Amino acid sequence: MAGSPDSPRHKHKVTVVGSGNWGTTVAKLVAENTRAHSDTFEEDVQMWVYEENVTIPPDSPHYDAAVGDQPQKLTSVINTHHENVKYLPKIALPSNVVANPSLLDAVKDSSILIFNLPHEFIGNVCKQIKGHILPSARGISCIKGVTVTEDKVELISEYIGESLGIYCGALSGANIANEIANELWCETTIAYNTPPCDRRGENGTNGNGANGDHHHRDARGQISKTQLTPVPLDYPPVDHAELYKLFDRPYFTVSMVSDVVGVSLAGALKNIVALACGFIEGHGWNMTAKTAVMRRGMLETIQFCQDFFPETIQEMTFWESAGWSDMIVSCTSARNWRYSKMAAERGVSLHEVERTELNGQKLQGISTTKEVMSFLKARGVQDKYPLFKAVEGIVDGTFEVKDIPVLFRQ
Amino acid sequence: MAGSPDSPRHKHKVTVVGSGNWGTTVAKLVAENTRAHSDTFEEDVQMWVYEENVTIPPDSPHYDAAVGDQPQKLTSVINTHHENVKYLPKIALPSNVVANPSLLDAVKDSSILIFNLPHEFIGNVCKQIKGHILPSARGISCIKGVTVTEDKVELISEYIGESLGIYCGALSGANIANEIANELWCETTIAYNTPPCDRRGENGTNGNGANGDHHHRDARGQISKTQLTPVPLDYPPVDHAELYKLFDRPYFTVSMVSDVVGVSLAGALKNIVALACGFIEGHGWNMTAKTAVMRRGMLETIQFCQDFFPETIQEMTFWESAGWSDMIVSCTSARNWRYSKMAAERGVSLHEVERTELNGQKLQGISTTKEVMSFLKARGVQDKYPLFKAVEGIVDGTFEVKDIPVLFRQ
Repeated sequence: MAGSPDSPRHKHKVTVVGSGNWGTTVAKLVAENTRAHSDTFEEDVQMWVYEENVTIPPDSPHYDAAVGDQPQKLTSVINTHHENVKYLPKIALPSNVVANPSLLDAVKDSSILIFNLPHEFIGNVCKQIKGHILPSARGISCIKGVTVTEDKVELISEYIGESLGIYCGALSGANIANEIANELWCETTIAYNTPPCDRRGENGTNGNGANGDHHHRDARGQISKTQLTPVPLDYPPVDHAELYKLFDRPYFTVSMVSDVVGVSLAGALKNIVALACGFIEGHGWNMTAKTAVMRRGMLETIQFCQDFFPETIQEMTFWESAGWSDMIVSCTSARNWRYSKMAAERGVSLHEVERTELNGQKLQGISTTKEVMSFLKARGVQDKYPLFKAVEGIVDGTFEVKDIPVLFRQ
Repeated sequence: MAGSPDSPRHKHKVTVVGSGNWGTTVAKLVAENTRAHSDTFEEDVQMWVYEENVTIPPDSPHYDAAVGDQPQKLTSVINTHHENVKYLPKIALPSNVVANPSLLDAVKDSSILIFNLPHEFIGNVCKQIKGHILPSARGISCIKGVTVTEDKVELISEYIGESLGIYCGALSGANIANEIANELWCETTIAYNTPPCDRRGENGTNGNGANGDHHHRDARGQISKTQLTPVPLDYPPVDHAELYKLFDRPYFTVSMVSDVVGVSLAGALKNIVALACGFIEGHGWNMTAKTAVMRRGMLETIQFCQDFFPETIQEMTFWESAGWSDMIVSCTSARNWRYSKMAAERGVSLHEVERTELNGQKLQGISTTKEVMSFLKARGVQDKYPLFKAVEGIVDGTFEVKDIPVLFRQ
């Protein structure tokens, strides 16, 4: 019965593309699951590491007097000591996380690719691996954010999928890498709209048959340009049940949904709201005012999704961890919030705070605000989004924080 | 044109029944609005005060050497000094808040009654004023909570309405009385489903005419036993626009909805969730875990409403201040949360905390949990509400806080 779903000849090989704080954390939890479900997954999880030299300090348990303070390769330290001493120190990794300095070797023959690296590197990585991956591979993007220009909104997962000719979903939630690495319980949301060609029939055939139409609807419900190669029948399926097995841990509860647009946009637009909340608190208002701003921000987020992606958006998505929970955490402890609060407390502009506190580094919330507002203005609908508009006004110095409550009047 | 809505002969007389911290705060803001909209409302707002003696301390600006520390009547202090020195000290009240020690005199001829007193007094108050109010009066209950028994769920606003033979809506939100008294901005939600007999036609007639059927649908969408007396045409209407005028202030943003059930149940069930959040944090989990519990609690709240009140519930209600915002504030700073956190931190039962910290006083969250669970068990559906059930189990010592994440597994 080779080729039937009961006894696939292959297991899924999993690669994590990226090895920062969050990438290494995801590699850890995924590797725990490939070991627990070794009928479905190859145990070893490849983790692509951008190679660099590290020095082990003498007070580290990994210090070796024979090596001393000589620089060592990060990949070899990870593979020897099972710890990413640079980006996730003091967390023991399972020995089946295999650090690989070669991007092409790391993704070779992998049927599940997990993308987890900074936004700005994704274009180059896709360019490099294009044509060097399994055509039937499937992706999950752990990268939050979307790319918004005057012309369009592009989800990271869509960008990856279209660049590589594969289908790619998204993982997002109220997640703090170090907490998860320390196995402090939280939840996440995985959005994955299993392509029709991967939906297996009762007799173990793919949904639209071997000769079927392998076009599929993209995240917006449009027919995608990408012609998909189905996941072969001699592999286990890649669907909600399998992805749940790959990501869910006792300390990391996964909720599966199909609404990739809603999950991705909630993860991006919350940055605008986090700026607004920081302004509100820095001005001297309390939690009750902050919840008012958060909820208005969420209503504008839902409206944005409904206005521009009416075919696929599901309102219940916003009650997921990627929606409400991530909004609350981002507006309570994250970077955009912290620096906008500081700006309002000091009565200076956010640009001033970028200069004095961030060495000129840019806050993501500001660029998200600018991009989203340019998209809305190009369509002449910016007035339907008074909170987003006010955040841009505060950043530009044309609107005052004290006037935020006025936006809420009927 | 007497009797046309353009020139009503009467203005609304407004009474606040209750004068605690929250009651006095509402009297203050309503009195500011009756003054601002003196075409619609009589300026003076009656506030019923349960009379008691107070002593003004020598360091108070209201201290009168001639009176010394002799006890004075609270109503006379309020009417002389325009401050509720006992329940809302240091807040100047508008002079048109009139404290009245006589309940019957305070409600006499009032066309709008605002109920704002502790839950446990409402039965007795309704009994006393029944038959002594205008039959066409309309009510707003600012009292959170519902009465749940094995047999039924009764909203406070329904109880008031049916006791008095009037229609009564509800005000609820993420509101902290002292902040609002100090004019720190926040939002609230008013749920009011304008009865058909009060909906005015274009020609100034009531919705179902002078001889129409004055039965109406109650909060559940059922035909109410109460036969309503319409708001007479020589009064301004009592509808969303007028209630907005009466309650909305620059520091207190009102959002009007029609879903009285959703608003009331969200305000009650959040107490169960606040206990769960306290347990979670007391056990050592962080914000990300708390948001998971809050959102699960909100999903069970929505499910409760949809299971038992499918006719009237509107899912968008839960995005209102009375929904999401109140949930967040209650799970971050309120009493139920604080003491359940303490119990989990100390590894003792909540009953133990009631004994040692609250002098045996009961936490509202515990009785809400017990009542809701007895209602669910009577219908055999308690397993559909795993979080609510777990909270009861923790209170009873049959479930452990550390096992909460297990509830979230698929």
